[in-house]
Amino acid sequence: MARYAQEDVTAAEVARQKALYGPLTQSIRELVDAAIRTEVDDDTVRAAQAEIEAVTARLRARQLEGSYGVRFTPSGGSRAWGNAVVGTRNAVAPPLVIHHEESGRAWSDFDLGAAYEGPPGLVHGGVAALVLDQMLGEAAGAGGKPGMTGTLTLRYRRATPLGPLRAEAHIDRVEGIKTYAVGHLADAEGVTVEAEGVFILPRWARERLEESGFPSRFE
Amino acid sequence: MARYAQEDVTAAEVARQKALYGPLTQSIRELVDAAIRTEVDDDTVRAAQAEIEAVTARLRARQLEGSYGVRFTPSGGSRAWGNAVVGTRNAVAPPLVIHHEESGRAWSDFDLGAAYEGPPGLVHGGVAALVLDQMLGEAAGAGGKPGMTGTLTLRYRRATPLGPLRAEAHIDRVEGIKTYAVGHLADAEGVTVEAEGVFILPRWARERLEESGFPSRFE
Repeated sequence: MARYAQEDVTAAEVARQKALYGPLTQSIRELVDAAIRTEVDDDTVRAAQAEIEAVTARLRARQLEGSYGVRFTPSGGSRAWGNAVVGTRNAVAPPLVIHHEESGRAWSDFDLGAAYEGPPGLVHGGVAALVLDQMLGEAAGAGGKPGMTGTLTLRYRRATPLGPLRAEAHIDRVEGIKTYAVGHLADAEGVTVEAEGVFILPRWARERLEESGFPSRFE
Repeated sequence: MARYAQEDVTAAEVARQKALYGPLTQSIRELVDAAIRTEVDDDTVRAAQAEIEAVTARLRARQLEGSYGVRFTPSGGSRAWGNAVVGTRNAVAPPLVIHHEESGRAWSDFDLGAAYEGPPGLVHGGVAALVLDQMLGEAAGAGGKPGMTGTLTLRYRRATPLGPLRAEAHIDRVEGIKTYAVGHLADAEGVTVEAEGVFILPRWARERLEESGFPSRFE
């Protein structure tokens, strides 16, 4: 199983990998969208499938045994490149680019297309939950109070249209090992979904947080 | 914007499209996984990207203007093929194949791989919410009480490992236009996440449900 791995990589190497894998993954996001919306003839669809299978076989010639995991760099950064919301290497992730403040605040502007649909033309209610779970967790982490989701409550004020959106979150309060975070999803007209969550730091992480060099934030 | 569209297609045509697009989309799911896990050399990665972009361009030669939407067939079935959880044509969707009972119960056995990761080796908390939002909505719909998510509450009992999982949901009670559904996500050891949600039927749908031929269930 993948773990929180301490990696001995330079910032230059991380940048090199990002420049290589970021565009690959973006090309797959475009392919996902095209496959939902295409209306080309059957032969073109079948030929596309055969080519995709050939590309996949080449990429699998050498691969990780399991999932990507989360990797820590010596500088205290982390790479959650397989993450379903922010993962640089994960085409399921939109991906969100999340900004943080040490006061325990996080925000992101992003766009959700056809791959995130629930009701026609609208963001899937569960996708709103997926995005907000990540945002609230990032706010908790940004404030130095990281944790895994304990509870999460979503209130859907109105439908969220596919297209440009913004998500924001901040720490509401901290009680011992529990961090309470709140946030929302919004379109240009205002808030569509509100969220609150409790994030709890597992015991193994509490112990490791006291080690020198262990990052104060993790996904 | 995509809508709930009434389609004049035969069951045979739907089956033909499913046999065409299902395998295409599955090939993209495999590609998504391979891109997260690949360790091949840089040139192979760049060549893969170029081929993917070429395939995408061919698929985009003729395409829907927006998202897929949800389409109703004359027999009362529906096709939510763009849906982020169950969409036959959506590579972001695992996809879940969901079984229903008219008593208002739904369940699904499925597998979540590297693309659904949050903490290392574990299902993203937001992905658990995504899956459970769909499951609770399907239970409400199966019982003839469909709706859009009003509120959703998740309780994370313990971490959910990537791999084979089961989700179940059922209607707890109905109060006017509100349907209360509950459910859970489980691995082989038992429940990992519990969910409850309120699903509310929008007014336009209440009016259409009284029309003859309008399906009693919608996504």
